[in-house]
Amino acid sequence: MDSSLIYASIITIGDELLIGQVVDTNSSWMATELNKAGVWMKRRVAVGDNKSDIVEALNQESSKAQIVLITGGLGPTADDITKPVLCEYFGGKLVTDPGALQNVQDIFARLQRPMLAVNLKQAEVPDTCTVIQNKRGTAPGMWFEKEGKIFVSMPGVPHEMKGMMTDYVIPALQQHFRMPAIVSHTLLTAGIGESFLSELIKDFEQSLPPEVKLAYLPNYGMVRLRLTGISYDVQALQATAQARFEELKEQVKEYLVTDRDEPLSHVVARLLQDAGKTLSTAESCTGGYIAHLITQQSGASRHFKGSVVSYDNQVKGEVLHVQQTTLQTVGAVSEETVREMVQGALAVLKSDYALAVSGIMGPDGGTPEKPVGTVWVAAGNSQQTITQKFQFRFDRQRNIELTANNALNLLRKLIVSEKA
Amino acid sequence: MDSSLIYASIITIGDELLIGQVVDTNSSWMATELNKAGVWMKRRVAVGDNKSDIVEALNQESSKAQIVLITGGLGPTADDITKPVLCEYFGGKLVTDPGALQNVQDIFARLQRPMLAVNLKQAEVPDTCTVIQNKRGTAPGMWFEKEGKIFVSMPGVPHEMKGMMTDYVIPALQQHFRMPAIVSHTLLTAGIGESFLSELIKDFEQSLPPEVKLAYLPNYGMVRLRLTGISYDVQALQATAQARFEELKEQVKEYLVTDRDEPLSHVVARLLQDAGKTLSTAESCTGGYIAHLITQQSGASRHFKGSVVSYDNQVKGEVLHVQQTTLQTVGAVSEETVREMVQGALAVLKSDYALAVSGIMGPDGGTPEKPVGTVWVAAGNSQQTITQKFQFRFDRQRNIELTANNALNLLRKLIVSEKA
Repeated sequence: MDSSLIYASIITIGDELLIGQVVDTNSSWMATELNKAGVWMKRRVAVGDNKSDIVEALNQESSKAQIVLITGGLGPTADDITKPVLCEYFGGKLVTDPGALQNVQDIFARLQRPMLAVNLKQAEVPDTCTVIQNKRGTAPGMWFEKEGKIFVSMPGVPHEMKGMMTDYVIPALQQHFRMPAIVSHTLLTAGIGESFLSELIKDFEQSLPPEVKLAYLPNYGMVRLRLTGISYDVQALQATAQARFEELKEQVKEYLVTDRDEPLSHVVARLLQDAGKTLSTAESCTGGYIAHLITQQSGASRHFKGSVVSYDNQVKGEVLHVQQTTLQTVGAVSEETVREMVQGALAVLKSDYALAVSGIMGPDGGTPEKPVGTVWVAAGNSQQTITQKFQFRFDRQRNIELTANNALNLLRKLIVSEKA
Repeated sequence: MDSSLIYASIITIGDELLIGQVVDTNSSWMATELNKAGVWMKRRVAVGDNKSDIVEALNQESSKAQIVLITGGLGPTADDITKPVLCEYFGGKLVTDPGALQNVQDIFARLQRPMLAVNLKQAEVPDTCTVIQNKRGTAPGMWFEKEGKIFVSMPGVPHEMKGMMTDYVIPALQQHFRMPAIVSHTLLTAGIGESFLSELIKDFEQSLPPEVKLAYLPNYGMVRLRLTGISYDVQALQATAQARFEELKEQVKEYLVTDRDEPLSHVVARLLQDAGKTLSTAESCTGGYIAHLITQQSGASRHFKGSVVSYDNQVKGEVLHVQQTTLQTVGAVSEETVREMVQGALAVLKSDYALAVSGIMGPDGGTPEKPVGTVWVAAGNSQQTITQKFQFRFDRQRNIELTANNALNLLRKLIVSEKA
């Protein structure tokens, strides 16, 4: 452990997370925010609703890190034991916090629901903590200090935890510690595998100074590269990181999709908005997932008109005007069909660009000629339509995600080529 | 720790997971599969690409659990250090495994790509392990035994890890240990909060025998309840768990959505298929997410015709035939509009049922009369259309998920009411 750095560990409490009934999205969000604030991550640990496991994790993690963030186990039900365990661990007794009580009462008044004894208990906190008010729910957060270490307990409900982290925890940690600066630059490549990329930039990687690290983040057939630097000398670090990032961009320029840390759908959105153009999608096998990726972004209505999800061939024919002869001769999963789907979407949804996909996502529906994973994608406008065939070999969920990302990338190439 | 049980810890290795650039979905999947096989989860730990942290985690977790599963850090790039660390930890030296080498060569031959030196290195394994062949990628898995404990190292790529777990690791663990049986029953409720549910079934919960536990899993305004029992006496456990689950179902029957561990979209799919009916959706604010939830399930084409994502009002008018006067007088987020969207979807997409949503997901687009989170939902068929208004108060992503789930629940109620 570099003694000049501030380290944090995250402890996630709850059987449901431990045994996998719920995916833990909290700790990756927390780690990202801590990292931006200059805190280095040490470990993340998930334990069950069990007193001795919680106590051991508190001991272990505080021996490794100056900051221990704890989420989960603060609900009103009997399986939530975090609060009494923390109360014992930090000494003191449970008292009702007036601010937390008012908050619980306000929430129930607003919901026009009767309040139960268990809800009142949520306003109780150990008298050894600083209370962090919960603006989005009933369970308050708790800030403890012990032997120079900071412990923060927050509810496991994601938006409640996020509110507390942003409004209180991060600013309070920044006040408490003198943080080094962490500077990150991320770019996204397409069309080159991780090992080829690694070969291509081997010399660059070996020439990096010790305070700057390179990480490979492969996902859906694309590879994200992240340069991260950490130092107390902010200005020197920013200059170094920026210079090395420019160098990296130059080395991978042939494969560069974006030099920002953003999903591909945001790249496409910016290209469309810069060109003042609109998009629609005609989706068969992705079942609306491409439209969902695009509309996850606030403000998507500026460049997205809508989609026809033509899961049934009848919809391809009647709504998107794909010809019956096309469907009967070459079938729904074919270059001709996705070309006609693009034309149909342009005409029906009145957009400047359209993106169409048709394929077999599995596990059923494959044939010897068109096995599971066969996908046709088309991107076009009134002037031209480009197509690409893919053969994926994964499970349904991953095939859907790969199809959506490769379709967005085909559209990106089309728009970029027209700008050139 | 109950000495009669088999415990497992999962160690996830990699800076990208630790610092949150990638969400860890592997360990929840692994935990679920281990649990089904009779292994109890002890802890889950994420550490960075750092030798001393990896070694400390191996020591700590093997002192707590009989099984230590390790994922990540096996890629071809320089930041992947897991293999040399494991080689040193378990003694021995790196040797090329003929089976793993053949596999790497086969993969590159199939992809028709030249092979690099780093790829050949992927076939190297410590000579102290049993090699687990990777049918889906280049990095082999490794099975080690040390002082009566089992350690298994697998790649972090989800589908590669899943393949190894299913084909090799789970069966081999079941052969190695005498596992107790774990029996789980899950049901889903809607329309009642966690604390009211807890109050309703308080006596039931207190009457449970020690080998059976109840967990509350609230999500998107619904609460899942899971009864889990563990015992070496399989038959007695199955009988007890089944009897208590029937009792629980009876107690919550007013709120019961399903007595299986399945998403709401599967419940709706089964209701539709049982009735021989089809569905379509007309989505504004959810942007195709409801269609995506439905088409995530293989075989959805049997009951799902498609969707019109009418993100732009022009699409609501021209494709779904929502009247201009409706959009101009009461606006796109209104009961009238979603009613007309249902009728439009029934007519255009030719389905028996249709589901329509229109709302403001935020953070932009709210007005004093229709603040962010205002949503209208309609579900209908040729006979009747029912509607419901919601007011959510979360971030965009959560508002989209809540809208989709509440819309599917409204449709479920309509179909159930028509069966009655």
